[in-house]
Amino acid sequence: MKRFFLFLLVFNQLIVMAQKNKQNFAIVIHGGAGNLVKKNYSPEEIVEYEKTLSFALDSGYSMLKKGAKATDVVTMTIQILEDSPLFNAGKGSVFSNEGRNEMDAAIMDGSNLKCGAVTNLQHIKNPITLANYIMTNSQFVFLNGEGAEKYAKENGFEFVDTDYFFVEKKWNELLRIRDSSKTQLDNENRGDINDIDKQDKYGTVGCVVLDQFGNLAAGTSTGGITNKKYNRIGDSPLIGAGTYANNETCAVSCTGHGEDFIRLVVGHEVHALMKYKHFSLQRSSDFVIQKELTEINGRGGLIAMDQKGNIAISFNTTGMFRGYINKYGEKKIGILK
Amino acid sequence: MKRFFLFLLVFNQLIVMAQKNKQNFAIVIHGGAGNLVKKNYSPEEIVEYEKTLSFALDSGYSMLKKGAKATDVVTMTIQILEDSPLFNAGKGSVFSNEGRNEMDAAIMDGSNLKCGAVTNLQHIKNPITLANYIMTNSQFVFLNGEGAEKYAKENGFEFVDTDYFFVEKKWNELLRIRDSSKTQLDNENRGDINDIDKQDKYGTVGCVVLDQFGNLAAGTSTGGITNKKYNRIGDSPLIGAGTYANNETCAVSCTGHGEDFIRLVVGHEVHALMKYKHFSLQRSSDFVIQKELTEINGRGGLIAMDQKGNIAISFNTTGMFRGYINKYGEKKIGILK
Repeated sequence: MKRFFLFLLVFNQLIVMAQKNKQNFAIVIHGGAGNLVKKNYSPEEIVEYEKTLSFALDSGYSMLKKGAKATDVVTMTIQILEDSPLFNAGKGSVFSNEGRNEMDAAIMDGSNLKCGAVTNLQHIKNPITLANYIMTNSQFVFLNGEGAEKYAKENGFEFVDTDYFFVEKKWNELLRIRDSSKTQLDNENRGDINDIDKQDKYGTVGCVVLDQFGNLAAGTSTGGITNKKYNRIGDSPLIGAGTYANNETCAVSCTGHGEDFIRLVVGHEVHALMKYKHFSLQRSSDFVIQKELTEINGRGGLIAMDQKGNIAISFNTTGMFRGYINKYGEKKIGILK
Repeated sequence: MKRFFLFLLVFNQLIVMAQKNKQNFAIVIHGGAGNLVKKNYSPEEIVEYEKTLSFALDSGYSMLKKGAKATDVVTMTIQILEDSPLFNAGKGSVFSNEGRNEMDAAIMDGSNLKCGAVTNLQHIKNPITLANYIMTNSQFVFLNGEGAEKYAKENGFEFVDTDYFFVEKKWNELLRIRDSSKTQLDNENRGDINDIDKQDKYGTVGCVVLDQFGNLAAGTSTGGITNKKYNRIGDSPLIGAGTYANNETCAVSCTGHGEDFIRLVVGHEVHALMKYKHFSLQRSSDFVIQKELTEINGRGGLIAMDQKGNIAISFNTTGMFRGYINKYGEKKIGILK
């Protein structure tokens, strides 16, 4: 009997210690999913990617530790990824068929369902900060192109020349597609995404956060798809599709072939499965990506978090740039499956 | 005993007759919701509205009868509403703060989740036909402004001069707001929608259909909100928010203060309540509009249909231009509550 009580005491102590090490905040980020092939990246490049993901995570986490609110952490963390030429957002945005950088972003606050989004920006250094500003200060949710930039100008945002977004590697990617896959260009058939599939096109950055106050937030920023035409809008800036947050369930940021994510309203679908079908975060995420998305031949992935700080990452491509610092302070970064 | 059997026989016959009169197709339309006040409309105007709604319904219904498919009926019916100067879509689109007509539209096919959407059109006579064309023929879902019009030009669409969209009444509406409610203009606070509330601003047209093949489709077309700024995008062209269709559950088209419909992802929310919570169509629609939308202080309404041809109409404004021909062939048109 004595031994049993001793065991109970030790067991209890272990639980208390585990509780102590558990913080009530966490962060996940992604830098895009795609059919990544290892040989396409030099070891030095891999180190660069990991370094940037790591820096973004650390910066966001230290803000959370100091008591910053979820939407601010999402914005600042995505800003770091936008400022890197590696990822397809902000500075590193890919080129449209017309040789332009057309940037989209969205953010959502899970505590009040407020949200802000922008599409077709060409001169704003950090699209995510404008999305945040719209959410916080305007009566609108979604502003577009010239109008969005006019709003930005009136509110003192930093403008950059289009040269700022020129990254040679991304430019060459456009030239390669414009040259090598003319059929993909000319054939408007929705089925013909194989050429894109073979390359790494689903660049997008995203961040999902639980802060100390129990609030969730999600943000996504992207340059879209290399060689996109006709001012195409993908899922990233669409609330409910590429970006969604709701304290009742989860915060979600997606990356992938945007059209399919729009058709499935992926972000809100993860939420609905949790809220109405009582699936766990991981089960909801896997159900949408591995089953529903795969069934309609869609490609991509998502990062998600619930209000307990559980993290889910799900993708059906060969790789996804990703990383997290969980509620136990454990940090992990990954690229391939 | 004999009397009981006789009763059964008659009862049975009545059921058979009811079944006979039941068609397996139906159509609902709306021409916008708002805090409509009777005294603002002359009896002649009311007749005009009812005549146009009636003509659109009859045209759609006769197509359905002949075996047309849901997406085609939605497109043609909305085209009729777009061509009328009465409703805020196509010809009758309201003016933005800059004095422009900026039109959005979306369509979704419940049988395969394909969809097409456009925003910020200025020269396309029938935005809904372009949305349908994008859904059917392109690899994209959502095209924007100049790019969307370039795509339209390459595919032989009818262009009109911006003069075509000039309707004096709508122009005067803009002048009245620009003059009378300067605070609403200058104050970007999301809470200040009262001035708009008092006028009739939520014009939008929509159509939801069940065809003979058991397929659902939904479409929405709008000129947005009078005096909108910064190329604001509302819920109408956003798949999942203002427009959604899925044969498993329902087809939905919304009208109202778009920002709130985006925050709730209204169309997909109605779907989720039916699919995962097994609510009926009417209960789902009322839950979203009367409870969820009302709780966040949102204003507007929706029309919806399920695969059995049941119809739901729900709005929390004083009125909504609406009409249906149900699966029994019964026709009804309404404006106020």
